[in-house]
Amino acid sequence: MSPDPTTERYRFDRDTRVEKLADGEFAAALTDAWTTFTSHPNGGYVLGTALNALRQGLGQPDPLAVSAFFLRPAAPGPVTARTEVVREGRRTATGQVVLEQNGKEVLRATATYGDLAPDPAARVLTLDTPPDLPAPEDCPVPAEFASGPQGLSIADSVEYRYPARPGWLDGKKDGSPRAEFWMRFADGREPDVHALPSMVDFAPPAVLEIGEFTTITVELTVHVRARPAPGWLACRVFTKHVAGGLHEEDMEIWDSAGTLVAQCRQLAMLL
Amino acid sequence: MSPDPTTERYRFDRDTRVEKLADGEFAAALTDAWTTFTSHPNGGYVLGTALNALRQGLGQPDPLAVSAFFLRPAAPGPVTARTEVVREGRRTATGQVVLEQNGKEVLRATATYGDLAPDPAARVLTLDTPPDLPAPEDCPVPAEFASGPQGLSIADSVEYRYPARPGWLDGKKDGSPRAEFWMRFADGREPDVHALPSMVDFAPPAVLEIGEFTTITVELTVHVRARPAPGWLACRVFTKHVAGGLHEEDMEIWDSAGTLVAQCRQLAMLL
Repeated sequence: MSPDPTTERYRFDRDTRVEKLADGEFAAALTDAWTTFTSHPNGGYVLGTALNALRQGLGQPDPLAVSAFFLRPAAPGPVTARTEVVREGRRTATGQVVLEQNGKEVLRATATYGDLAPDPAARVLTLDTPPDLPAPEDCPVPAEFASGPQGLSIADSVEYRYPARPGWLDGKKDGSPRAEFWMRFADGREPDVHALPSMVDFAPPAVLEIGEFTTITVELTVHVRARPAPGWLACRVFTKHVAGGLHEEDMEIWDSAGTLVAQCRQLAMLL
Repeated sequence: MSPDPTTERYRFDRDTRVEKLADGEFAAALTDAWTTFTSHPNGGYVLGTALNALRQGLGQPDPLAVSAFFLRPAAPGPVTARTEVVREGRRTATGQVVLEQNGKEVLRATATYGDLAPDPAARVLTLDTPPDLPAPEDCPVPAEFASGPQGLSIADSVEYRYPARPGWLDGKKDGSPRAEFWMRFADGREPDVHALPSMVDFAPPAVLEIGEFTTITVELTVHVRARPAPGWLACRVFTKHVAGGLHEEDMEIWDSAGTLVAQCRQLAMLL
């Protein structure tokens, strides 16, 4: 791996770095800086590593739609990414990546890339509003988030700002599975289209507010809708339907200019 | 293909029938009974054919999450489905199917199957309500839907009932990209988990109401949330964000017992 000042500077870029071994084959190493409640690396972070390999072979700059199936929990350590160009079209390029660890497939993602360069002539219709949040500096930082709870290293890599202290931190289980909050990388890395498919999975699950702490993602789809402006990201996460041991979780990310930049829905299983 | 009374009786089952050629390889023929505004077979119908092949090799009964990438428009005629079992787990089975026509890939779908048998012990939380619709028999049938508009053969295969005549039928372009309506198969086939991943794509696009008639699906994800009760399905379709020549479309299907049975979001491109 040749040192690249861009990828050396920020943790997310260092930790999702891939080394090309052959056409369609890449090596990477998952780190322990993105672990969650499950003590496994966050699925969005794992996906970010896989996409970092996939996009090397695609002739379009921006991920438009990414769907990832999480097959086994990943662990910190070496992984292999195998990529396939499915179709290169005029406006879009589609590819697939399989991430393997210890010889077993942990994630399979398919993605269509395109060009999200701003087009002043394109029609814009926005029938929703960004989260209505106090300024980030006016949001208290729960001690649990500031210190990085035991085993929850993602809270060291990502900064969260909630308008009020989340009830689940105090053991409340009767809340609403919906939250709005600010988010950014802790080391000042600005958001971009390549980080968004990871960041949509960085929210503490909305179902924590109803006492469900062990949920694993089956499938996650993210649509990146615009290139984000620098600064804090305003996020909205919510679950409307829990049934049969499954729930969906929706996540929206709006940038500092008030533009919706990513929409995500995942299907998750309660254990 | 051995004649099967079940698959011979209803058009959807006949038209999505597959013949196994070898392990992981199936032949099928897309018909002209599901064409839409684009004069191509509806993407949901094409996906239904692909899933009919995929599920033959999976050890779980119900699709939970399906993501499909639409790579080229399909046409009526022969197709080949190539399937792969990605992982068979205890609670879920994941596979992938590639649908080819004239040697070119038209669709790639990944799906996780599981078991949606009702579990009385499972927690149920529903923070949304079904569409509030008059009874189907009190909904007028627009003449355009009753006769099956030229080239729009899906309107012969699927029955739609709207509480009021959609504005786009009269050339109005200033409506809200949101609709609630009833839907069922025209020949009396009851809904089931295998039809839902197709039916979530059967709605006339919500963006018709804002004058956008040429939209093609890039990616579609559907979560099947419950086995549907027999009868009419109450549907809600809406778009909230149009930007950069792209828009998402959400579709919910609720069964006759008032249960959410499918949630779908697609990313589509305006031409």
